[in-house]
Amino acid sequence: MVTVGIIGAGRIGKVHVESICTKVPNAQVKILADPFMNDETAAWAKAKGVQHTTKDYKEVLADPEIQAVLICSSTNTHASISIEAIEAGKHVFCEKPIDLEVAKIKEVIAALEKHPVKYQVGFNRRFDHNYAAVQKAVADGKIGDVHIVKIASRDPAPPSMDYVKVSGGIFLDMMIHDFDMARFLSGSDAEEVYAEGAVLVDPAIGEAGDVDTAVVTMKMANGAIAVIDNSRKAVYGYDQRAEVFGSKGMAASGNDSASTVQISNEDGVTGEKPLYFFLERYMEAYATEIKGFVNAIENDTETPVTIMDGLKPVVMGLAAKKSLAEHRPVKISELM
Amino acid sequence: MVTVGIIGAGRIGKVHVESICTKVPNAQVKILADPFMNDETAAWAKAKGVQHTTKDYKEVLADPEIQAVLICSSTNTHASISIEAIEAGKHVFCEKPIDLEVAKIKEVIAALEKHPVKYQVGFNRRFDHNYAAVQKAVADGKIGDVHIVKIASRDPAPPSMDYVKVSGGIFLDMMIHDFDMARFLSGSDAEEVYAEGAVLVDPAIGEAGDVDTAVVTMKMANGAIAVIDNSRKAVYGYDQRAEVFGSKGMAASGNDSASTVQISNEDGVTGEKPLYFFLERYMEAYATEIKGFVNAIENDTETPVTIMDGLKPVVMGLAAKKSLAEHRPVKISELM
Amino acid sequence: MVTVGIIGAGRIGKVHVESICTKVPNAQVKILADPFMNDETAAWAKAKGVQHTTKDYKEVLADPEIQAVLICSSTNTHASISIEAIEAGKHVFCEKPIDLEVAKIKEVIAALEKHPVKYQVGFNRRFDHNYAAVQKAVADGKIGDVHIVKIASRDPAPPSMDYVKVSGGIFLDMMIHDFDMARFLSGSDAEEVYAEGAVLVDPAIGEAGDVDTAVVTMKMANGAIAVIDNSRKAVYGYDQRAEVFGSKGMAASGNDSASTVQISNEDGVTGEKPLYFFLERYMEAYATEIKGFVNAIENDTETPVTIMDGLKPVVMGLAAKKSLAEHRPVKISELM
Amino acid sequence: MVTVGIIGAGRIGKVHVESICTKVPNAQVKILADPFMNDETAAWAKAKGVQHTTKDYKEVLADPEIQAVLICSSTNTHASISIEAIEAGKHVFCEKPIDLEVAKIKEVIAALEKHPVKYQVGFNRRFDHNYAAVQKAVADGKIGDVHIVKIASRDPAPPSMDYVKVSGGIFLDMMIHDFDMARFLSGSDAEEVYAEGAVLVDPAIGEAGDVDTAVVTMKMANGAIAVIDNSRKAVYGYDQRAEVFGSKGMAASGNDSASTVQISNEDGVTGEKPLYFFLERYMEAYATEIKGFVNAIENDTETPVTIMDGLKPVVMGLAAKKSLAEHRPVKISELM
Repeated sequence: MVTVGIIGAGRIGKVHVESICTKVPNAQVKILADPFMNDETAAWAKAKGVQHTTKDYKEVLADPEIQAVLICSSTNTHASISIEAIEAGKHVFCEKPIDLEVAKIKEVIAALEKHPVKYQVGFNRRFDHNYAAVQKAVADGKIGDVHIVKIASRDPAPPSMDYVKVSGGIFLDMMIHDFDMARFLSGSDAEEVYAEGAVLVDPAIGEAGDVDTAVVTMKMANGAIAVIDNSRKAVYGYDQRAEVFGSKGMAASGNDSASTVQISNEDGVTGEKPLYFFLERYMEAYATEIKGFVNAIENDTETPVTIMDGLKPVVMGLAAKKSLAEHRPVKISELM
Repeated sequence: MVTVGIIGAGRIGKVHVESICTKVPNAQVKILADPFMNDETAAWAKAKGVQHTTKDYKEVLADPEIQAVLICSSTNTHASISIEAIEAGKHVFCEKPIDLEVAKIKEVIAALEKHPVKYQVGFNRRFDHNYAAVQKAVADGKIGDVHIVKIASRDPAPPSMDYVKVSGGIFLDMMIHDFDMARFLSGSDAEEVYAEGAVLVDPAIGEAGDVDTAVVTMKMANGAIAVIDNSRKAVYGYDQRAEVFGSKGMAASGNDSASTVQISNEDGVTGEKPLYFFLERYMEAYATEIKGFVNAIENDTETPVTIMDGLKPVVMGLAAKKSLAEHRPVKISELM
Repeated sequence: MVTVGIIGAGRIGKVHVESICTKVPNAQVKILADPFMNDETAAWAKAKGVQHTTKDYKEVLADPEIQAVLICSSTNTHASISIEAIEAGKHVFCEKPIDLEVAKIKEVIAALEKHPVKYQVGFNRRFDHNYAAVQKAVADGKIGDVHIVKIASRDPAPPSMDYVKVSGGIFLDMMIHDFDMARFLSGSDAEEVYAEGAVLVDPAIGEAGDVDTAVVTMKMANGAIAVIDNSRKAVYGYDQRAEVFGSKGMAASGNDSASTVQISNEDGVTGEKPLYFFLERYMEAYATEIKGFVNAIENDTETPVTIMDGLKPVVMGLAAKKSLAEHRPVKISELM
Repeated sequence: MVTVGIIGAGRIGKVHVESICTKVPNAQVKILADPFMNDETAAWAKAKGVQHTTKDYKEVLADPEIQAVLICSSTNTHASISIEAIEAGKHVFCEKPIDLEVAKIKEVIAALEKHPVKYQVGFNRRFDHNYAAVQKAVADGKIGDVHIVKIASRDPAPPSMDYVKVSGGIFLDMMIHDFDMARFLSGSDAEEVYAEGAVLVDPAIGEAGDVDTAVVTMKMANGAIAVIDNSRKAVYGYDQRAEVFGSKGMAASGNDSASTVQISNEDGVTGEKPLYFFLERYMEAYATEIKGFVNAIENDTETPVTIMDGLKPVVMGLAAKKSLAEHRPVKISELM
């Protein structure tokens, strides 16, 4: 049984409390910390079986019973709390992105070199049943050498403008998951990135200096070409698909929906929309990633999403940002 | 090149003129006969390349250049014209059903025994790409021993009440195709039939002594159980599906539609309806069945749908009718 | 918070322990009773948070803190324990079937009339996302008047011969779920049943006096015709589909599978098989049915599957058994 | 009835002979010309109903009965024969590409300005039922403003190396169809092109100076971003799909296959591969495009694929070639 503390009681922090308490039998949440901890959240946590809540995340780091820390606080604190936790000898699960700056992530890497605890980054989609099945098909050699990777990733609605302004932009906030997918599904690193972007959903996003629609192509180290498309708004729901095409065939995944039911009538044959958003689509994946983290601790094996897996998509995102700004293909090596 | 005459210039007769002229390179239509032949039809036939049109079908039988006759006249004339054509030494393609009475079909069989020409019955669905692929999977042993056969067959709209009254009823007019499919897909004959029927679409059909909704279960000689459902009205179009389930798996066919396009929007994910009706769904099958007939003539081989294949579904239909009337399972042997 | 005791720690009893402990926040399992309770099961239950385990189910009935009892013991004890629990003033959730004899179920009904506690029968499929969505479409009027209901239900492998011998036969053990579905999806009761059956999977099943393949057609009170097919062995997994066809269209549900991934290669385009069996397919439904039960207790409303819903499929199963034995359609009224 | 002559009796010339003779009732092929005309081809043409065959295409242009010419000769002759035909007052249907050089296409445009006959370019995919349905959904406003267009286009096997060497390269030979699709489906012109390419299928293609795998992204004038992926070898057959994503939803088309049959067994649920190649997939589209051409002649309306529609994909292909060579995004205006 691994005892964990969770830092950050926002949406994703609560997801982890919920999934650990109900779906991860070999872990328990001892402390939930959040600077804005209030009675309501504390009561909710208690009902889930969390022993203690606090406004001070340092209580988590100081508790000798806590073996592992889940960092679910705001992005700008990920790196510094990571380092504190590492130095306190805690295993760390850190939500993505570790940081928006490469230098800060390298500081975390340096801390890990001194204190080699387990460190996992929250790229939950690797644990989604559909993406995992595509990856398994690729890893099992079923599609041969990888030639083309295509990833569609579209949100049902844009985030608030407040969030857009601090998010780091579409490439670091949203497409970062798809950059991870491109690596995960192709089994290879990106070498060069070219980004197209447009403001088609909401002019306010453009005024904030971001784009809301983007297509990025990449040359991967194994020769494959990868392409990702993102939109901040798909009216039909959360569209999350991938296909990997290679010398022996293609593996493609579709969306999940609430049921398999199809209605045939005078208007056509209609099935359900994709599940609405990430909480619906990836709830199981959130539990599975924590199971993977806990197993790595218990078995003293490498975590399934390492700090390098956390670093590289940030670099890819920065490269995409630079590509869009400078209107040219950008090599990953320029950013590293 | 096989020279044919076509007797009957109604809808199905015209289908055969059209498909032979455009899709069957080794056949030509020399004469089209119909008691109601008029200038319009004659002009249409001429434009298609038919040399001659007439009101008198006996001209077809008397022409020594005519090698084969397609009987597309009204059902009550099928058997007698079949016998005349057989006695005239013509190969015969006869639309289904040969007759609504077993005795009359046996007269045709007797004629064939004396004059062994080629004889094919117009069960076009055997030549449909979907049903043919299911049957091939079964025949190739891909599903092992057949355990259950399910056939759904629903028309987009009921025929006119005038037609309903002379059609012989749903079992002999509509389900007869599905009885043929049950034999074709299972590779076995029916031994016993049980019919359920209801008037749910149009009370006028009930007043005419027929049902518009029917489910028939059958014991097949190979042990399989077959079930057919029919409706005279599916608002979403012509619904024509089959599945064969067996010891090694299942082969199932769906409908054809006008395109593969799917629209995803706030209402769901919507694909096209099935093709509207038999002319849309089976146009290629009509050409393929005639190719099969012409090839049997040219190669002197058995036709792909023999007179016995024509007889048995009629008996199954009569058994279903009797089952519904007497409210009990009816053995095929009771009718033969 | 509703406190429950569970009687029976076999497969389904454990499913309920598991799902209540992890997925039903407003219920807790206080006692788990089983005549064969052993250390392993007791330890397992304790780890799940169950306070107490016992060999004596009467401890459950005697505990004043227990508000509701889940009866998951062997079928032949369902009715008598139901009555004891009712008389003890406990709400009852009883696994299907309540009993294989109508008279015994009527005794439970009589007990309920005297002691009106909540009583729910374990027809879990009503809570499956796919079936529930079909039913909702029907109930919402999307398909108009119901004309035809088709239910396919095939297990991946037959049960042990020991189980087959005491199961009550395919109609009462397996098809009983589908009889419930026929009522649930059509919104109507059966009036007459006709059964076909065959021994195609395993001769030993025939030697035990049962069939392993069955097709049942039914006349429903609302005029619809329903047809169910069952097989004890589908090599491709648990096949659970339904379609409801009516005056305005059709609602059809398919199987669930482990992922949406499709592999395209030289052999075709291959997707995943259906989920293997009921634990995989219906795990969520088991939690949802208990939520429904607990909500009925908390809100003092009717349970979503009443004792009459438990009785009627038994009668349908007995009618099907009689139909097969006597080789004729059997009216439900003959059995009631 | 429009009388046509066909110049070029290679594969595509024969496709047009076949489809006009069997599927275009208001056109007839009078002359088929090919410098390599031989007895076999002449006999084949005669059997199809073509009156005359010749080695000299000038006979076609000189025949006063010929109203329209189909130019199906080798690409390097398209422009010059187009001009000759235009000057002879014939309507022209010219296979794609008109030429690999913009200047030569402009000469044809100049000829048309002097002699305004009908001119149609052979972008057959616009007439494919699937692409046409996507385009109709877009044109009907069903997906709102276009944001992202994705086109997958993969051949089952590379052409011969002899062909590769004279083809103009993947962008002008193969992707040219997809450039046309990007314009057709988005309803907009490309403004800028960025190309990625790789040699992953056959090193010999690389040695010939071409790539066999390519991904091109484009900025369209209406703001949309389009992306095309091409491979010279998809082992599962001809993969031809498109999706258009916009403010109100998405329209996506899939492949056609030989049947709808799905086999469920221990290995999964397997459907048929896409139809093998363009002759299988687009045979109906070839007939439909000629019907469109003939109708434009008969009704004196604009052809459905104008010479400007022929020019623009060539420019897009040249821009893609330049982009790949210079490793930068290339504006369409640089090439015009």
